[in-house]
Amino acid sequence: MLNFEFQNPTRIVFGQDTISRLDTLVPNEARVLVLYGGQSAEKNGTLAEVRTALGQRQRYEFGGIEPNPSYETLMKAVELVHAEKIDFLLAVGGGSVIDGTKFVAAAAKFEGDPWRILETFGGAVTQALPLGAVLTLAATGSEMNFNAVVTRKSTKTKAFFATPLVFPQFSILDPTKTYTLPARQLANGVVDSFTHIAEQYLTYPVNALVQDRFAEGLLQTLIEIGPKVVNEPADYDSRANLSWTATMALNGLIGAGVPQDWATHLVGHELTSQFGLDHAQTLAILLPSMLHVRRDSKHAKLLQYAERVWGLTTGSEDERIDQAIQKTRTFFESMGVKTRLSEYSITADAIDKLVQPLQAHGMTQLGELQDVTPDVCRQVYAASL
Amino acid sequence: MLNFEFQNPTRIVFGQDTISRLDTLVPNEARVLVLYGGQSAEKNGTLAEVRTALGQRQRYEFGGIEPNPSYETLMKAVELVHAEKIDFLLAVGGGSVIDGTKFVAAAAKFEGDPWRILETFGGAVTQALPLGAVLTLAATGSEMNFNAVVTRKSTKTKAFFATPLVFPQFSILDPTKTYTLPARQLANGVVDSFTHIAEQYLTYPVNALVQDRFAEGLLQTLIEIGPKVVNEPADYDSRANLSWTATMALNGLIGAGVPQDWATHLVGHELTSQFGLDHAQTLAILLPSMLHVRRDSKHAKLLQYAERVWGLTTGSEDERIDQAIQKTRTFFESMGVKTRLSEYSITADAIDKLVQPLQAHGMTQLGELQDVTPDVCRQVYAASL
Repeated sequence: MLNFEFQNPTRIVFGQDTISRLDTLVPNEARVLVLYGGQSAEKNGTLAEVRTALGQRQRYEFGGIEPNPSYETLMKAVELVHAEKIDFLLAVGGGSVIDGTKFVAAAAKFEGDPWRILETFGGAVTQALPLGAVLTLAATGSEMNFNAVVTRKSTKTKAFFATPLVFPQFSILDPTKTYTLPARQLANGVVDSFTHIAEQYLTYPVNALVQDRFAEGLLQTLIEIGPKVVNEPADYDSRANLSWTATMALNGLIGAGVPQDWATHLVGHELTSQFGLDHAQTLAILLPSMLHVRRDSKHAKLLQYAERVWGLTTGSEDERIDQAIQKTRTFFESMGVKTRLSEYSITADAIDKLVQPLQAHGMTQLGELQDVTPDVCRQVYAASL
Repeated sequence: MLNFEFQNPTRIVFGQDTISRLDTLVPNEARVLVLYGGQSAEKNGTLAEVRTALGQRQRYEFGGIEPNPSYETLMKAVELVHAEKIDFLLAVGGGSVIDGTKFVAAAAKFEGDPWRILETFGGAVTQALPLGAVLTLAATGSEMNFNAVVTRKSTKTKAFFATPLVFPQFSILDPTKTYTLPARQLANGVVDSFTHIAEQYLTYPVNALVQDRFAEGLLQTLIEIGPKVVNEPADYDSRANLSWTATMALNGLIGAGVPQDWATHLVGHELTSQFGLDHAQTLAILLPSMLHVRRDSKHAKLLQYAERVWGLTTGSEDERIDQAIQKTRTFFESMGVKTRLSEYSITADAIDKLVQPLQAHGMTQLGELQDVTPDVCRQVYAASL
């Protein structure tokens, strides 16, 4: 096991009818800005519940935070924070809204150009507004971590920052609030969580037995509930287990003391920015081919994955790895998520255009062994056609 | 899954050569009281490392905290805290020292008779001194939770309290500090952790898939490393995995959103107070017979345990449950821990004396279904002979 530090102070409030807890979780004297995305939070009644729970507090609202939240939009929220002397932020939505709210929390207190927050990956942040979240979509884990991804629309730059200063103070997870989600978002959530776990698990062994067992348990849970969540009518237990799995997939716990990869995520960002694919759609395409191309350096963990997660114990080692990768692909497809570039009409002649920005963005040594060069990425894209 | 709240703010610093981190974790101006148990922390050099790391800070020391820390001893530490205007407590040791330090933290700030802290199970605590820990023995999980058990020697009362105010701010886990532990303490640590997990896992199903998988993963890890830790020379990976497993076994995570039992622990306390058995020795005796006696209400989870933890898939349901219980017993015995009262020369005529105090202490409805009456406890003791 590698040395590590782990701390996660976010309070999780989990279960049905828990939004009313806002009344005790948000300070009474707070001037609260409620941030949300599109119309679904209004339509499904979540915003109404939030307004009721906040009671007499000074409340302002800022809607319209996009999927892949944009710097440009978020800076408008920062203006509102300054104009109305907001001192508490409440994100109501999924990962994009929470990520965006984290950025607003840091930017509102930042001296100088807030883009520096992203250029320094959060290192330049010295203070942030307190924030909480009401989660309506299980996927990114943003509700219990200190990471955020923000996109600058003007330059199509997807940038990342992290600082413990933007841990949500609390996150309310009411699984019933995910009942009205469309199948595509549910499937994306399962794929996103699955890939988060894979990025922290499918590397090389460091004898971290607990982290491995936890990662395997989360993957097994997604395999058990994923198709049911996507293809069947909403039921509480499936949604609750999806929510908790997605949270545990990226709250620092399974990644503590182990190598981490993240090449699939980073390479996938180009597919989103150039072709507009959903984040999770890029992962479903790239993860199987990433594992295939890098099967040598991931050999031991892929075998462990094949056996413990998929129960594959017969055939040669290579055959078991092939089967495990194929089962991963089939699992994504069983939820209606495509796993080939060609299914989005992206062909071999796009690969150059996808690889070039990696070089430009300094992403030339990705992965747990820093051996995922642009040339390896080219192979991965080629294997994804 | 049941509704739940979960928050655990303790910072874990894990790995070799991490005690020096105290210099950044303890406030520079702090007046620190270092609390420890017997001579082992001095002999194995841990205290020397702690002193060096604390540098020029005002430092006081209080040794002699017993296994099953006593109220009487701890109140002497409280006196020292008052006399020297201590404002930070640092526990150096295992669960007993950390539990004791939590009590000192609460008692030093308590107005009125500090025994009230225990009488109210922590409810009367409104403030506490900040504390940190350097863990030298993996077992109780006290390094990352807000529970403590304290014994009043004068009345032989073992009492419990819990309040988020006594979460350690940080805990340093350097697995090499466990290298000098005797086999008996290592084995006790494995049994204690195993039973902590069982108390939160072997109840009745509520479709909490993640919690079940995590509990199973922790049990599998203990089964994999336990005999090695106890019977073979110290190696880093085994000790590191034991330390992290013991911490995760009782930090609130696997118990969130599921029913909990704890009858084995509560019934075991009588064996410690009347016959002086180590806490873990009582658990190794009582857990197998507790599962046996209560096999009907625990039926579904016992079958799941048999299959997922022990790989038992053949035979009738009753046979699989029998085998799983027998394997649990054999596992404890493989580490040199006895599983029968008779091995400690405790015979049937002691049972009355063991059952009576349960009634006197109001422990008449134990377990996840409150159906563990003194009569059930009598059956458990009888099955443990």
